[in-house]
Amino acid sequence: MINRAHGGNAQFFLDTNALKLIDFSVNINPLGLPRKVKEIISENIDNLLCYPEPESAYLKKDLADFYNISHRNLLAGNGSIEFIHMVPRALKAKRALIITPTFSEYEFAVKANGARPVFVQSLESNNFKINISRIKKLIPGINLIFLCNPNNPTGMLVPPEEILALTGLCKRYGVVLLIDEVFIDFVESSEKLTLLGESIRNKSLLVLRSLTKFFALPGLRLGCLIGQRDLIGKLARFQYPWNVNALAQAAGREVLKDRDYMRNSKEFMFKERRYLFDNLKRIRGLKVYPPSANFILCNLKDADAGNARILAKKLIKHGIIIRNCDNFRGLNDKFFRVAIKSRKENVRLVSSLRKVLG
Amino acid sequence: MINRAHGGNAQFFLDTNALKLIDFSVNINPLGLPRKVKEIISENIDNLLCYPEPESAYLKKDLADFYNISHRNLLAGNGSIEFIHMVPRALKAKRALIITPTFSEYEFAVKANGARPVFVQSLESNNFKINISRIKKLIPGINLIFLCNPNNPTGMLVPPEEILALTGLCKRYGVVLLIDEVFIDFVESSEKLTLLGESIRNKSLLVLRSLTKFFALPGLRLGCLIGQRDLIGKLARFQYPWNVNALAQAAGREVLKDRDYMRNSKEFMFKERRYLFDNLKRIRGLKVYPPSANFILCNLKDADAGNARILAKKLIKHGIIIRNCDNFRGLNDKFFRVAIKSRKENVRLVSSLRKVLG
Repeated sequence: MINRAHGGNAQFFLDTNALKLIDFSVNINPLGLPRKVKEIISENIDNLLCYPEPESAYLKKDLADFYNISHRNLLAGNGSIEFIHMVPRALKAKRALIITPTFSEYEFAVKANGARPVFVQSLESNNFKINISRIKKLIPGINLIFLCNPNNPTGMLVPPEEILALTGLCKRYGVVLLIDEVFIDFVESSEKLTLLGESIRNKSLLVLRSLTKFFALPGLRLGCLIGQRDLIGKLARFQYPWNVNALAQAAGREVLKDRDYMRNSKEFMFKERRYLFDNLKRIRGLKVYPPSANFILCNLKDADAGNARILAKKLIKHGIIIRNCDNFRGLNDKFFRVAIKSRKENVRLVSSLRKVLG
Repeated sequence: MINRAHGGNAQFFLDTNALKLIDFSVNINPLGLPRKVKEIISENIDNLLCYPEPESAYLKKDLADFYNISHRNLLAGNGSIEFIHMVPRALKAKRALIITPTFSEYEFAVKANGARPVFVQSLESNNFKINISRIKKLIPGINLIFLCNPNNPTGMLVPPEEILALTGLCKRYGVVLLIDEVFIDFVESSEKLTLLGESIRNKSLLVLRSLTKFFALPGLRLGCLIGQRDLIGKLARFQYPWNVNALAQAAGREVLKDRDYMRNSKEFMFKERRYLFDNLKRIRGLKVYPPSANFILCNLKDADAGNARILAKKLIKHGIIIRNCDNFRGLNDKFFRVAIKSRKENVRLVSSLRKVLG
């Protein structure tokens, strides 16, 4: 039985009074809330007396404009996780392919819906590059593929041409490829890497997006699913009304206008990603995988420091929380993941890791 | 095809600038937000940077204390609607019994999960009293029963002894009886009418509760499901993590402390229910069904005023929105529902109805 624990629970299980902790276990934009969110939420508190718009019609319209698609190509959800659980159910998938190591909820979602997960392991020896030829071989026997791109926790990015090479086969066998792009906003040149534009005309593709990671609002819950309109129309019947709360709808509509926040966040992330990667690489005994989004996977394999669980315990004493990755299928107790945060926090992480591992 | 429209969408489809409208189509506590909610939400905006507690552990503990049960008897949901859709799926129901006229989402939920609804019609000629003997006959061929108590939109209340008379048969045939008590907090002596206490030891019963109707927070989304702990544990596997947003968790925990609000709301509702019922009854041509919660079903059957759709259009000109009930299975175009609101608003409703129907 895999442990269902995710990152980002620091505030619940730790005595945070003891020490000001920096939480590197959760992958959220370090710039914090976009400027107007606080105002918009305050303004909308009195409106909580009203039901949310039942199908997020206005938010969907704004999202569609933002992505330059039609609102019929899009569903809004109570976090992207809603769709991870809903798609296998709606498609009545019997066997779903999961490329490991990856976000563990795909497996839970598949099993909760009575389907069987079929795993394709990306190998550490190959820097976790995904095994396209193995996936192609398995396509005739499956209904659904989960592809996390960029992948959590490895950071691996599959180029669009490699994904498109799969979709012909998917179409032939009636397989849907769900591309989880919830971290793609943090990636350089993401507009060239996303399959969002392709998904609206390809019934074998669905693209999942999150608004709460890039806009730093995970407490509010807001994700969306994009695809060809008939497929989206079919999936809509598996949502319940009022699934997106009123404050998430209001904040979601607001953040889409904040182009400054988006540009600043991307620039900030590109710089800090480079900084943190370069500095983690220099730590003796640490193997660091090239990041593409807002987190970095590390491997203690050459270190004498024991495993990631022990490392995490030691780092807590330095006020730092990391994501021990031993509950990711396909990783072992040597792996951990860190979020990319502000320069000051990243410096603190590097120096603490040096002390603990040195 | 039944129209999926619900009440409470006034702010979305009407030009509310034209006139200050009073929305009697939505059944929310007229006292408005409990005292501290605004403060609690404002205080928690900065915490939106963190994920919500993934399984609402602290909220569940507070709810369990409030209901005097264990947290293992309870799940928290993104509105009670989450459970209406999840229970048929989790129980793999093939045939689900729905007692009409009632909340239309039961039917949508059953069908979305590939099950067949089996309808038992409560008759107008019997004042919509539910047909217990007919239900008993059908139990051997079904898996699940939806019983809305008090029933939306009829206001009919089934006494606990009649429900308990069904559970023996439910147990014998492995049927689960889901009692939707989302309006029971508005009912007089609700503590004697709820089956919440019974449900924790009876695997054939589940009780659904809402926090957002009585505490006037429908925009936030918060419901809970109560039952025997093994059954609840089984159902928990069909929820996705972080389903309840952080502000709903925080506000939910806060309102449970506000005993003054609860007492005032009940007293207010008892008085206004009596007032509105007595005064609606006196309107010529209107049949009014005895209310038990915070809404009243009315029937134009003896009126010359045409149907409820025409009535609704006329009332809009008086600044009043009612819930036309022609899309409730088992009702026709003569029925409409009104929420019980403040005295001033109720007076306005009565006088407008008199003018329009007189």
